[in-house]
Amino acid sequence: MANCVVLLSGGLDSYTAAAIARADGFALHALTIHYGQRHAREIESARAVAAALGVTRHLELNLDLRAIGGSSLTSDMPVPRDRDLGAADIPSTYVPARNTIFLSLALGWAEVLGATDLVIGVNALDYSGYPDCRPEFVRAFEQLANLATRAGVEGATFRVHTPLIALSKAEIITRGIALGLDYGLTHSCYAPDAQGRPCRRCDSCVLRARGFSEAGVADPLLLR
Amino acid sequence: MANCVVLLSGGLDSYTAAAIARADGFALHALTIHYGQRHAREIESARAVAAALGVTRHLELNLDLRAIGGSSLTSDMPVPRDRDLGAADIPSTYVPARNTIFLSLALGWAEVLGATDLVIGVNALDYSGYPDCRPEFVRAFEQLANLATRAGVEGATFRVHTPLIALSKAEIITRGIALGLDYGLTHSCYAPDAQGRPCRRCDSCVLRARGFSEAGVADPLLLR
Repeated sequence: MANCVVLLSGGLDSYTAAAIARADGFALHALTIHYGQRHAREIESARAVAAALGVTRHLELNLDLRAIGGSSLTSDMPVPRDRDLGAADIPSTYVPARNTIFLSLALGWAEVLGATDLVIGVNALDYSGYPDCRPEFVRAFEQLANLATRAGVEGATFRVHTPLIALSKAEIITRGIALGLDYGLTHSCYAPDAQGRPCRRCDSCVLRARGFSEAGVADPLLLR
Repeated sequence: MANCVVLLSGGLDSYTAAAIARADGFALHALTIHYGQRHAREIESARAVAAALGVTRHLELNLDLRAIGGSSLTSDMPVPRDRDLGAADIPSTYVPARNTIFLSLALGWAEVLGATDLVIGVNALDYSGYPDCRPEFVRAFEQLANLATRAGVEGATFRVHTPLIALSKAEIITRGIALGLDYGLTHSCYAPDAQGRPCRRCDSCVLRARGFSEAGVADPLLLR
């Protein structure tokens, strides 16, 4: 089995992307970043999801992006509620260069493992318009990875797998359920309350609710 | 004055690159990463150099790459001594994806500052053959930066300045001395002793000594 490095946030998308990679025959090396996110509750979900997936290894790295700030997920800016998801603007929950930073860390680990496959659960359909979730970003990162590394110089070709990039949230959920995933383990909300309960009004909650609704499935997280 | 983000390690090259950016009219925002490097002594030098340069801000971030390892700078592997610098192989001091990770962090900070200029002291002449010091890597990172960020989507063009990339070590030193730099503040050695004194046998020490010798200048670090 080939090794891959999968970015695992504890959310619904990265769980599904990891499960698809596992179904495709990869041994999963899961990477979770404590980046000072407001919703650090998702780290617990990442651990639960990693265990459920039977990953080969789950690595957690600390990198406090609050020192940089610039996002409502890493500063005191309020998380937007009830936002128009059809709006063209990029919301304040965008974290500057986040996926570039995270993929770079995944790349470093992959190189140490002798792996050339990275997996990320980005989605360019039911999403918040983040630039680093788009196919053109992913392709550019692959180009960079081949030039950035010893492995690339020695002839390796890195691939960033984005199995969800063209799926709707409902399709992601349907696919995950077919793979036997328990979405009750995940966490999506950007602004949970002190008990970790979802706000139901941030982009992430709204997209999740719409996805479960369109998939015709109850969200196990809300049944608890 | 336009802001730039400069990666500042505490070594000779990044000090010179930062000074050139300052001479070019940039306000310096210096970024230093504690990455679990064996030669953490360089962090003290980064602080001294940042003060000497009068940077607008010096940000230090913790990101322990020992969790990933794969390099003699971030694991128990021995640092090579008396290596043939003409050899084609990439030595064990290569840190997987290091410059990709560091530039990504610089990019995130730049975006928060509203800056589009990044500065890195990479050199593709008197160096250890690291893939992420080459011009083609730098160009690929610029492409990625424009696609990865909100600023890029909104029309900004990021530039990664590499003022040293085509200079010999002697030329770098000559340039720095002309700018009034005190290289006695810097640290280059990968494997210093417990008192922080350079080993004089690692690539970094050998390249530094050769540079000072070819520049016809005494290294102030060795005069102390």
